Amino acid sequence: MSFDAPPSPVADGDLASLFPLDRSYTFLNHGSFGSTPLELLAEQDRVRREIEARPIEMIGRRMDTLLASARESVARFVGTSPDRLGFVTNATEGVHAVLRSMRWRAGDEVVCINHVYGAMRQSLRRLADEFGIVLRELTIPLPVQGSHDFVAPVVAAFNGRTRLLLVDHITSPTALIVPVEELGREAQRRGIRVLVDGAHAPGSIPLAIDRIPCDAYTGNLHKWCCTPKGCGIVVASPEFASELRPIATSHRYGEGLTREFDWQGTRDMTPWLVAPAAIRFFDRFGWDRVRQHNHELAAWSHRELVRRWDVVPLSPLDGSLLAAMAAIPVPEKAQAAFASETAMQAHLYDHARIEIPVIAWQGRWHVRVSCHLHTTPGLVDRLDEVVRGLG
Amino acid sequence: MSFDAPPSPVADGDLASLFPLDRSYTFLNHGSFGSTPLELLAEQDRVRREIEARPIEMIGRRMDTLLASARESVARFVGTSPDRLGFVTNATEGVHAVLRSMRWRAGDEVVCINHVYGAMRQSLRRLADEFGIVLRELTIPLPVQGSHDFVAPVVAAFNGRTRLLLVDHITSPTALIVPVEELGREAQRRGIRVLVDGAHAPGSIPLAIDRIPCDAYTGNLHKWCCTPKGCGIVVASPEFASELRPIATSHRYGEGLTREFDWQGTRDMTPWLVAPAAIRFFDRFGWDRVRQHNHELAAWSHRELVRRWDVVPLSPLDGSLLAAMAAIPVPEKAQAAFASETAMQAHLYDHARIEIPVIAWQGRWHVRVSCHLHTTPGLVDRLDEVVRGLG
Repeated sequence: MSFDAPPSPVADGDLASLFPLDRSYTFLNHGSFGSTPLELLAEQDRVRREIEARPIEMIGRRMDTLLASARESVARFVGTSPDRLGFVTNATEGVHAVLRSMRWRAGDEVVCINHVYGAMRQSLRRLADEFGIVLRELTIPLPVQGSHDFVAPVVAAFNGRTRLLLVDHITSPTALIVPVEELGREAQRRGIRVLVDGAHAPGSIPLAIDRIPCDAYTGNLHKWCCTPKGCGIVVASPEFASELRPIATSHRYGEGLTREFDWQGTRDMTPWLVAPAAIRFFDRFGWDRVRQHNHELAAWSHRELVRRWDVVPLSPLDGSLLAAMAAIPVPEKAQAAFASETAMQAHLYDHARIEIPVIAWQGRWHVRVSCHLHTTPGLVDRLDEVVRGLG
Repeated sequence: MSFDAPPSPVADGDLASLFPLDRSYTFLNHGSFGSTPLELLAEQDRVRREIEARPIEMIGRRMDTLLASARESVARFVGTSPDRLGFVTNATEGVHAVLRSMRWRAGDEVVCINHVYGAMRQSLRRLADEFGIVLRELTIPLPVQGSHDFVAPVVAAFNGRTRLLLVDHITSPTALIVPVEELGREAQRRGIRVLVDGAHAPGSIPLAIDRIPCDAYTGNLHKWCCTPKGCGIVVASPEFASELRPIATSHRYGEGLTREFDWQGTRDMTPWLVAPAAIRFFDRFGWDRVRQHNHELAAWSHRELVRRWDVVPLSPLDGSLLAAMAAIPVPEKAQAAFASETAMQAHLYDHARIEIPVIAWQGRWHVRVSCHLHTTPGLVDRLDEVVRGLG
């Protein structure tokens, strides 16, 4: 394996200046909440002022048309049909919409893996408390050598009581791409419903939702598409579309998926309306080029930090399981210097102005490096330097 | 009864200029979606930029403290304790949070009145479809002579299967204040839970939620407190507080009401954070003076239009059942000139630039006049002039 140079930026000039981030920090956590380019914040302001000038006209009369146009643009981007796509605040809401659109009986089983996003595990706990469903959470052995490592344990857990497979497309604590196509196929041919939580997927990997064997897919656009915060989607398969409804029913109960999702009560719909502008924003660089850059920088960071810190990676160094993030075990010496991963994260922020999540995973702590247009190899070098100085 | 002069404005100067509304329209529909003063939109922008500069610091580390402070200010304003108040997007979400926090059995009955907000009726229909609950919707005879007219039909409908009374504090189609204190008392002493939907209450009437006998109370601040859109609250009684949770559970399931509501996934929380600034905005005029002005202008509009149009009012002309809105039957000649109430509303907007809802209620159409600081008697005079010219 050769340790090559980092990827070149997608364009000349100071790309970080397009974002509102405080540059006195080494910001390596795009993944948690995203970052919205200044230009898109301005566009959101513009749309909001337009709504506020004539609120009834804009919300009461024109919103259906405006949302239809936004849905069309977003659906094209994620590879599905606009008539099966609903806007939600975030993927957590999308997951809840799906869970609440199914009828549960005591003893129904839901399968997930131990890399599942914490909030989703809690949602399933709530279903267990309310309806008596059983949660089967499978452990995926580490290090993950390839996609196939995810499949066998999950498939072995399926049985006649399994109603749903809930699986992240890209895991949050470990930043790994899950083979949702294969898992979905295995589940669906057993009559098990499949819900994919693509919180980190749109904008970070090429996405064609309709090619994934699943009943429902949810995702965020405020993370990797950089829309204003509060822009998520939930997509139903043609079969599930008649069942899926938003968590808060308003006037349009029973009028069909898009009618119901397009009116969930008075709210700020500008994050949804600005989504097409966010997609266009990155079109100027080319989405393939953007995703490639972000992926290559994540893979480079992974390889470099694993080598420099002499640690065992969670996944192959070729980056085949990575999107635009990588979770790297911190050196043992650094881990030993703090009482908790939270203390280490606070130290990095307070004393070195580095913003990066430190995540405990099976006894080891990991930093999760996120890469987007505003990320440069120099920031990763700085992280390396500071972490090597710890302990 | 004397037909007196309209109330004076709460302050000198052009108060409408404080709002972003397009003044080429006669805007008489504050009630549907509210209107946010320019100063508060600017404050929202400021807070959003602060969050975007250091998203993890602001959302991940400081948000609990920021929300605690916002909750405290809002709780004081609506007369309850901040530790039983959760922020939601809107009252529709608040109602759903309560409905989803109860366990339903087939045959459970929910009582409401025929003035119930349409979206709430739909939420109850969804519960009926999912759990087999029975909705009992009582008709209140018109015209309403006084508060007592609401009480007898509702109380007569209570029986051993009644689980919940769901009632608006101020009705949407008819703009009447409902005697929630008396209804709540009657329900609770029969062991029936009470959910008050105060969508129109905060900012339009003096509010002391803890003095209302109810298990849960929900409301919007984007209507009459003029916060940015997407600011609702739900409040639980001390007894119900341990059961109430948001519709979308995130990481904090089971950690208690405020912990759960304060984190419902990534979203734009600026409408909640700006709520204290909205309360302060009207403090400069005095909230009592603001509410009194809005009420008196609504009562004046009611009296004047009923007299000028020679119609039978829905409620007493002393305004005792009105807050800051009044629904007035349109002259029969005007009604006869259009195929539907929608057509009449569109005509007023398209041909006279008047923005006002026209609502069909028991065979008669009504205009609902909303009054806030930007409303002047001259706008109501203009509505009168145009409506009298119809047909």
